[in-house]
Amino acid sequence: MATGDIGLIGLAVMGQNLILNMNDKGFNVVAFNRTTSKVDAFLENEAKGTNVQGAWSIEELCSKLKRPRKVILLVKAGDAVDAFIEQLVPHMEPGDIIIDGGNSHFPDSNRRTKELSAKGLLFVGSGVSGGEEGARHGPSLMPGGNPEAWPHIKEIFQKASAQAYGEPCCDWVGPEGAGHYVKMVHNGIEYGDMQLISEAYDILKRGLDLSESEIADIFLTWNKGVLDSFLIDITANILKFNDDDGQPLVTKILDQAGQKGTGKWTAIAALDAGSPVTLIGEAVFARCLSALKEERIRASKAIAGPAKEAFKGDKKQFIDDLEQALYASKLISYTQGFMLMRETAKEMNWELNYAGIAKMWRGGCIIKSVFLSDISKAFLKKLDLESLLFDDFFNKAIENAQPGWRRVVAQAVLWGIPTPAFSTALAFFDGYRSEILPANLLQAQRDYFGAHTFRVLPGKENDKLQPGKDIHINWTGRGGNVSASTYIA
Amino acid sequence: MATGDIGLIGLAVMGQNLILNMNDKGFNVVAFNRTTSKVDAFLENEAKGTNVQGAWSIEELCSKLKRPRKVILLVKAGDAVDAFIEQLVPHMEPGDIIIDGGNSHFPDSNRRTKELSAKGLLFVGSGVSGGEEGARHGPSLMPGGNPEAWPHIKEIFQKASAQAYGEPCCDWVGPEGAGHYVKMVHNGIEYGDMQLISEAYDILKRGLDLSESEIADIFLTWNKGVLDSFLIDITANILKFNDDDGQPLVTKILDQAGQKGTGKWTAIAALDAGSPVTLIGEAVFARCLSALKEERIRASKAIAGPAKEAFKGDKKQFIDDLEQALYASKLISYTQGFMLMRETAKEMNWELNYAGIAKMWRGGCIIKSVFLSDISKAFLKKLDLESLLFDDFFNKAIENAQPGWRRVVAQAVLWGIPTPAFSTALAFFDGYRSEILPANLLQAQRDYFGAHTFRVLPGKENDKLQPGKDIHINWTGRGGNVSASTYIA
Repeated sequence: MATGDIGLIGLAVMGQNLILNMNDKGFNVVAFNRTTSKVDAFLENEAKGTNVQGAWSIEELCSKLKRPRKVILLVKAGDAVDAFIEQLVPHMEPGDIIIDGGNSHFPDSNRRTKELSAKGLLFVGSGVSGGEEGARHGPSLMPGGNPEAWPHIKEIFQKASAQAYGEPCCDWVGPEGAGHYVKMVHNGIEYGDMQLISEAYDILKRGLDLSESEIADIFLTWNKGVLDSFLIDITANILKFNDDDGQPLVTKILDQAGQKGTGKWTAIAALDAGSPVTLIGEAVFARCLSALKEERIRASKAIAGPAKEAFKGDKKQFIDDLEQALYASKLISYTQGFMLMRETAKEMNWELNYAGIAKMWRGGCIIKSVFLSDISKAFLKKLDLESLLFDDFFNKAIENAQPGWRRVVAQAVLWGIPTPAFSTALAFFDGYRSEILPANLLQAQRDYFGAHTFRVLPGKENDKLQPGKDIHINWTGRGGNVSASTYIA
Repeated sequence: MATGDIGLIGLAVMGQNLILNMNDKGFNVVAFNRTTSKVDAFLENEAKGTNVQGAWSIEELCSKLKRPRKVILLVKAGDAVDAFIEQLVPHMEPGDIIIDGGNSHFPDSNRRTKELSAKGLLFVGSGVSGGEEGARHGPSLMPGGNPEAWPHIKEIFQKASAQAYGEPCCDWVGPEGAGHYVKMVHNGIEYGDMQLISEAYDILKRGLDLSESEIADIFLTWNKGVLDSFLIDITANILKFNDDDGQPLVTKILDQAGQKGTGKWTAIAALDAGSPVTLIGEAVFARCLSALKEERIRASKAIAGPAKEAFKGDKKQFIDDLEQALYASKLISYTQGFMLMRETAKEMNWELNYAGIAKMWRGGCIIKSVFLSDISKAFLKKLDLESLLFDDFFNKAIENAQPGWRRVVAQAVLWGIPTPAFSTALAFFDGYRSEILPANLLQAQRDYFGAHTFRVLPGKENDKLQPGKDIHINWTGRGGNVSASTYIA
């Protein structure tokens, strides 16, 4: 008689912790691992005294599960997921559910949903955020895939997930790879948030010459306002953390940022979707630039910047401006992230649950913040909200932030302190609110040298410039040829 | 008796023009097209009275070529290239050469080089820039692939290519897909140049309230200085070009920029290589943003920018500053482009001919400029130049440009005129010349929430912080666990 509510394959720390978490919430979990000695070790140690059952083969795992069977894979993304799916399939029956909780790339989850659906099985690709501790005590869970699976896993998922504002940080995201897609965007946004905080730190340190301890106090203050978030909180803690000699430990850390690739995935997905997610792009590139440490040391000696000048303005005001710059830039980053999801949803023909996504991110994950609560409110007010900037609350917020934001970016530019993320956020904002951009000139250039044609601006139509037509002009007047003769020389 | 020097498959305008070009240079070309009626039409019309021969089958084409046979494919990138290669192979003999002159993605050219090499055939993937007119009168040619092919095609390629400064705009680029790779970077750089010019136009128009005709005069002046280039030249022509009613035509063009994807390829290649090619990235995203015309119109009504203020400073000085801003940003863009090629060369184990690449781009293509002549000089002075910014000439140039560049970006930020490319160039410059970037904080965050570890900054080592070690710190002091408990809630 099968008694297992859910099975889990992959007993690394993440998997063990998620099992213990689900066990705590009253579910009977069956644990399996390819190297079965890990099953024994887990049952004898971490899982001792719990209701967790072991399985020493895939067949046994499946035989111990109630129908429809539910199996979570927490194994290395890539071939291992396909290999386990292949092993599971013969022991499963129509309606059974395979859940991939790893860090899979969403095209794989698209494919797996379709492949398993053809076999009568339900695939779920779920983003799991929050690391090992999140898995143990409540992660942010972002499940997507075959929607028929959701009613069967909803209770387990929503009980195991983090809770924030009295609601679970887990809801159904959308079809196919939507869960992993949203997790990817989450990670990209995390890259952006971290880069923005780093730029603020750099400005306070190099621009205002503040100490790490003074900067920590500023972050503590910010953590009581609109920026209230996990990342601001830990930043204050980090800046307060001294080495044994009393020096801030952070000043002894090599300034070369690593990456695990999901930020890069988001930037590439944005390029592929034609969606201007500039802030995440800059955040990824900033990590790339940081990695060129030796070259930067040589450059710092070879290239002079502006002469250092002590700040003569009102420091208090400037710090308030910086808070607004960080807030506004963050708002742009999330605006871009949701634009990307909207664009992808259109392309993939997915219906995404935007308010739900914001709610899922309010707890259990790195980007959790008060801000995400405001985003979920905005989408709840208007489910088809085109852009966060059109929401009254955020519209006022960015209007309020604008003057200080501009002062900070202009000052950083004059100081010679790099603010790629602040700057790109502002450039996006100014481009986004521009009815006319200079892309008209760019189109003229493309038509001039490559006969790529252009369209007429509404209101400027005439006999030669007809609406809806691809128009080519003989710019040089020299012969009827499409390209200019100056082009050749 | 075979008399053909080279064959060409694909009689669209590009192919026809390249044939006529090679014929003009004294080579005997054999023309083939899948739809053979095009061969007849070509011989009876455009090629009438030339030495061009026709072929009505692949077999005939090959039989008419002297050994080693050389066949250029100018067909649609993708499957068509593979299909023609497959048809050619049975009629070729070891040492024969297949050249793909289409807009192929470099990984395909990597693959084809290897596949044909295994069959004893020599593959060349050649970038061809300059459009239809370039093909007819002299394109920029960027051949790469099997180096054994080069001695056999060198004369034809270098005679058919554009000539600039008394040298051909064609040299051997490197192995495998290097030719198509370099062509891709060329296109990305073209995106960047066009975006920079558009931003300068926007600042002159919206910031200084100048007319198109006044702006054209400024571009004409710039075209006599460091910015002297094809794109600046045609920009002046475009801005001078009036519609029948006397209004500048450019003001009637819809500001939605199209793209053909190669700029995107470059940005993705940069992300994949971990190379911070931020300017091309922003240029691609700027086109994406321009495409959201309807949304921008709505945003322009919903979101207020800074109040419009007339410029009170010295206009002449500001215009000079803008010239320097454009020049410096362009220098950063090319610096990034060459960094990307260097990084890729390392990864692919290619030796690239950087001075040659700059020379190839001096003529025959959209980005041709005096500036590229200076770049080729820099690489000729020092073949393994790490960065253009380390070259004396450019180092002084950017030092000279810096104050004006900063003033322009700061002013645009206060005006609310978007300058994504100018801004990212400056942010990169300031990051590049920073010995210390705030990535130390970012690494601390990653270690705090995910135990991702960090390394110690040289000079700050101690017993706990050992050089070359991946270090993890228990930041919260709460228990030995790798992650902070604040992370969960």
